[in-house]
Amino acid sequence: MFYDAVEGISRDSLAALQTERLRRSVATCLASPFYGKRLRALGLGPENFNSPDDVRKLPFTVKDDLRAGYPDGFLCQPRDAFIRLHVSSGTTGAPTAVYYTANDVDSWSHLVARCMHAVGLRRGDVFQNMSGYGLFTGGLGIHYGAERLGCLTVPAGAGNSKRQLKLLRDFGVDGVHIIPSYALHFGHFLQQEGIEPGDLKWRFALIGAEPHTERARRRIEELLGLKAFNSYGLTEMNGPGVAFECAAQAGMHVWEDAYIAEIVDPVSGEALPDGEVGELVMTTLCRDGMPLLRYRTRDLTRFIPGECACGRTHRRLDRITGRTDDMIIIKGCNVFPMQIEQALMAMPEVAPNYLIELYQENDMDQIRVKVEIQDEVFAADDRTRAALHKRLVARLRDEILVTPAVELVRRGSIPPAEGKAVRVDDRRVHEDCRSGA
Amino acid sequence: MFYDAVEGISRDSLAALQTERLRRSVATCLASPFYGKRLRALGLGPENFNSPDDVRKLPFTVKDDLRAGYPDGFLCQPRDAFIRLHVSSGTTGAPTAVYYTANDVDSWSHLVARCMHAVGLRRGDVFQNMSGYGLFTGGLGIHYGAERLGCLTVPAGAGNSKRQLKLLRDFGVDGVHIIPSYALHFGHFLQQEGIEPGDLKWRFALIGAEPHTERARRRIEELLGLKAFNSYGLTEMNGPGVAFECAAQAGMHVWEDAYIAEIVDPVSGEALPDGEVGELVMTTLCRDGMPLLRYRTRDLTRFIPGECACGRTHRRLDRITGRTDDMIIIKGCNVFPMQIEQALMAMPEVAPNYLIELYQENDMDQIRVKVEIQDEVFAADDRTRAALHKRLVARLRDEILVTPAVELVRRGSIPPAEGKAVRVDDRRVHEDCRSGA
Ligand SMILES: [Zn+2]
Ligand SMILES: [Zn+2]
Repeated sequence: MFYDAVEGISRDSLAALQTERLRRSVATCLASPFYGKRLRALGLGPENFNSPDDVRKLPFTVKDDLRAGYPDGFLCQPRDAFIRLHVSSGTTGAPTAVYYTANDVDSWSHLVARCMHAVGLRRGDVFQNMSGYGLFTGGLGIHYGAERLGCLTVPAGAGNSKRQLKLLRDFGVDGVHIIPSYALHFGHFLQQEGIEPGDLKWRFALIGAEPHTERARRRIEELLGLKAFNSYGLTEMNGPGVAFECAAQAGMHVWEDAYIAEIVDPVSGEALPDGEVGELVMTTLCRDGMPLLRYRTRDLTRFIPGECACGRTHRRLDRITGRTDDMIIIKGCNVFPMQIEQALMAMPEVAPNYLIELYQENDMDQIRVKVEIQDEVFAADDRTRAALHKRLVARLRDEILVTPAVELVRRGSIPPAEGKAVRVDDRRVHEDCRSGA
Repeated sequence: MFYDAVEGISRDSLAALQTERLRRSVATCLASPFYGKRLRALGLGPENFNSPDDVRKLPFTVKDDLRAGYPDGFLCQPRDAFIRLHVSSGTTGAPTAVYYTANDVDSWSHLVARCMHAVGLRRGDVFQNMSGYGLFTGGLGIHYGAERLGCLTVPAGAGNSKRQLKLLRDFGVDGVHIIPSYALHFGHFLQQEGIEPGDLKWRFALIGAEPHTERARRRIEELLGLKAFNSYGLTEMNGPGVAFECAAQAGMHVWEDAYIAEIVDPVSGEALPDGEVGELVMTTLCRDGMPLLRYRTRDLTRFIPGECACGRTHRRLDRITGRTDDMIIIKGCNVFPMQIEQALMAMPEVAPNYLIELYQENDMDQIRVKVEIQDEVFAADDRTRAALHKRLVARLRDEILVTPAVELVRRGSIPPAEGKAVRVDDRRVHEDCRSGA
């Protein structure tokens, strides 16, 4: 019934397994420059961990630790043990890197295969990966998992809707992976092409990498004529495959044999009771190359109390309800306003004032950057302004990896910010519950 | 010294190995709808193959056979044995599909790892894949090979030169995979950034997927400050990893334990003596899922006589000197003029006359499409024409997967074609020798 017997493990056995793996992770971490120093300073070794809750003896690891440790301050194995790395962000923001050994890629692929199986996909099904590949973990991460499960995997990549449709039809695709904003776009494309939701054979869409409302999920299901399943992952925890909905669509099972998940008060850092919303903190239990201990994801969510109808014993995360920082997720890309500021300020034609507008259209978050430009450029002819506009869009796209709307405005037309370094006008109206990133 | 002992196998032992594997391939092919029928009609079975030359008992397989067999007429295993497929071409042209079992992906990855080792890359080296992923086999094919070899693989994907440069520097990249046109572009980008060829640590570039001259290769080597190695592959034979230069840079060793390669007269189909230029014909020896027997690649090349200084016994292919059909390779994409015709004719604003211009710029092949448009559209305002131009470019890009230059011209300004269905003006001046596709 399950892909993996551990999905139905008793909570007692799970605690024992977590304890054993936590010890192993701590032992492995002694070899990393960052954790080795920290653990020795605290006098902590594997012997100090006798239950999953003992993870609380450890201090948190935060995004800034990863930034400071870039590019290789977290590695626990010799350099030649690593076969993959994924990197966050563009060229000016402080990047972070996650490295994988062959074992890490293997266990990651296994977890993704388990997620896909939980949704209902099986060996022999046809699976089209409609998300971008490259450094975005949603490409290779899902691809390796689909091959591991034994699906006939079509690496379509992002975009080119006509071609996507041809592939979906020609190969009788059963399931796809698609980011929510593209799913909505693709649904409208199908309408234009006169294709009814029931015309395609597909039954499953895995959606993630981008916040979206429950209403957006239901809209995707209607438009595409399939069931859409939420997924949660972040590159620091491998990528996709951390937590996934089962067929019950009632929260995302977080794979507790591979991660210790905690919900803490974002201010005090104290553990919160089951059911209360707080910051998700995660510890890897199956990573050889670059384990992370008590990593603060900055994602706000809660454990859903009670048991799931599917019989899996791993606890369920609710949709992500927000962030503890100013990160914005647009079209699957993590964007920090500071990246936009740095990219703009590198261009002499740009006056110091700008505004990032966030709004919603078709149930999805959108971004627009209003940029004041120097008077002499603003007064120039259309062609000059159009050329600057093009360069600005390209520069921002290279940095944040998504193409924002950009509006050039006259100097003085944006009210100056008052003591706030980063200028974001957030017009999004959010429901309570949003989904995993 | 070699990645794989078979690289130095004696010619006699190789012949025995090829015979055994040819028999196995023929036996496997009996299960495919296409070959099963053909082999039974000819009364041929594995027992009829007692030397590699016995492959000539088989008729050729041509691209049109693959098109007719689309989507699944060549499969030799149950559907649930397949884990991957790659597809050629866009949405209107007759497509072809290649399917891979887990074993096929495994042996393909092994061959790519062998190629990368032959160039000089080793376990622990850092390798950046600067080519696109998705359905293009140069992405996943090289990626899997690099991980197999044990390189720390950076899945950078195509484009975003600033970011590519940051990755090259931050991770001390040793080798890259890059298509030649982007390599030249990237070289000019480095010049603009004030980076000297010796400033980067990289030593190896694998270049392929696109014809280029020896002069372009040397230019790439100068601009980037590394050694560039030619690669030959085609999706029908897996993708990259079919033939590869070794450190001697004196032709591409074709892996004869995995393929039987023949050079035949493109008209008569007869075998040509070693050293003469003809059409490359290939038979897969290590494919379970979709073996191909005597596939006519339409690529013109020759075997380089004599032995290679490296000691590998597998024969070497010269650069591809041309094609037996009208296929054009632009930025790594295979383009048939018929695809362009079909895409244009689907748009009512387009008048029936058009011209495909091929020319060279910076040692690389370029494509421009001149399109006559209907009088009422030509007479319309700039904005209307610009919108049509944009739609035309997008339509062509979706079809041929590369963005062509497009020029809208008045009806009657292109001389009508005389009895020639497809209109191509080839202004390319080619050297004798061009490299693998
Ligand atoms: Zn469940
Ligand atoms: Zn050699």
